[in-house]
Amino acid sequence: MNKVIETILAHKSIRKFKNKPLSEETITTLVECAQSASTSSYQQVCTIIGVEDQGKKLKLAELAGNQSYVADNGYFFVFCMDYNRHTIAANIMDKNINDTIQSTEAFIVGTVDASLAAQNMAIAAESLGLGIVYIGGIRNNLKEVSELLYCPEYVLPLFGMAIGYPDAEPGKKPRLPLPAVFHKNGYKKKEETENLLKQYEKETSEYYTKRTGGKRTEGWVTQITASMASPKRTYMKEFVREKGLNKT
Amino acid sequence: MNKVIETILAHKSIRKFKNKPLSEETITTLVECAQSASTSSYQQVCTIIGVEDQGKKLKLAELAGNQSYVADNGYFFVFCMDYNRHTIAANIMDKNINDTIQSTEAFIVGTVDASLAAQNMAIAAESLGLGIVYIGGIRNNLKEVSELLYCPEYVLPLFGMAIGYPDAEPGKKPRLPLPAVFHKNGYKKKEETENLLKQYEKETSEYYTKRTGGKRTEGWVTQITASMASPKRTYMKEFVREKGLNKT
Repeated sequence: MNKVIETILAHKSIRKFKNKPLSEETITTLVECAQSASTSSYQQVCTIIGVEDQGKKLKLAELAGNQSYVADNGYFFVFCMDYNRHTIAANIMDKNINDTIQSTEAFIVGTVDASLAAQNMAIAAESLGLGIVYIGGIRNNLKEVSELLYCPEYVLPLFGMAIGYPDAEPGKKPRLPLPAVFHKNGYKKKEETENLLKQYEKETSEYYTKRTGGKRTEGWVTQITASMASPKRTYMKEFVREKGLNKT
Repeated sequence: MNKVIETILAHKSIRKFKNKPLSEETITTLVECAQSASTSSYQQVCTIIGVEDQGKKLKLAELAGNQSYVADNGYFFVFCMDYNRHTIAANIMDKNINDTIQSTEAFIVGTVDASLAAQNMAIAAESLGLGIVYIGGIRNNLKEVSELLYCPEYVLPLFGMAIGYPDAEPGKKPRLPLPAVFHKNGYKKKEETENLLKQYEKETSEYYTKRTGGKRTEGWVTQITASMASPKRTYMKEFVREKGLNKT
């Protein structure tokens, strides 16, 4: 166990921040950390938009499903998959690389690149005593978010990250049992996973029962099945296509 | 600057490892670190397959484009997007959530979840003095990789990660200028990016010229335009569909 691993294992999403902005120096350090992550074939498909304008933050908070901590935090970042930069590069060389950009493969690469960068920033922020929370909620209204941030074709905002000085001390929800998530040499048999999930249902049910004084008793299996009952953000396929991505 | 940020900023991909396996304790710590990452709506869409069987590692190395370090390392992990687990959960509850799983939105969530977990593992490994390299090359032949690792429907291997004791000291390639990657309040105008890319072309050209003694002089703009000239892994859309993912 060292300081880095301690930081990683101590992660909890923070949804309430003190009214204290991040310094410019901290913001730069965080972006540099994000940039240091691995990137597929040196493509560097991630762009980060820092949202400082309070009007825009309030609008984003509303678009993300009225999450107040999108507006009230130390800083707000939006992580984008960005192939617009590559079209500009190709244009300098008088070439066209759109066939590559619009592929499913490129869509995977871009999503991975942006996520690796984001997680570097998350860990760096937490190491500075800051709290973070990912905001997938910006995908509730991605067209509006994209317009608000002037994102051109081939630039897809994927998620936000609110960072700030923590003003809450949330509990840590139990993760899936390690053997459910870590398989050796090949994917486990269905029966093994089924047994692990039943055990996890019990464990998480006990956790929620205790935490809510019995008001909420559903475990992970029950919760997830309910929350995934109907598809979310069903406009996504079409919107992503309009951005010129994930087409072929 | 602290130990965590130092570790993050010092990242360089390592492609040559000493012949020394990771201990079981280290492997467990790394997986726990991966599990600690944020996960969208508590869905935990990532499964990690540890490949220990040397025959399978050799086969993977071949499938990934004859990358020897896929077989020769301290340990090899494959990160998968995994919604099979959720179908088992739904099945326990006698429900069907396939409409949710096959959506583009779920495809984004799964790719992000697996990537955040992976980057936690990368940082944790590097903090222990280990080196890492992401292996996107497993996507060269994903059908064969998927079969080799017994991945059922809704389980998509995304990338591998080779970890081990470094036996090389590679240089650090210059990243894009920070202003090209970090925009404030909205995406930058094309002209600004164009200028930054021209500056970066010069910087990276100088870097390669120096590093190769003049054998290689192309900068990032030239390199990227050439490497993205024609689409890669064009089977991906169809294969991902067959897995039941990214359909609607």
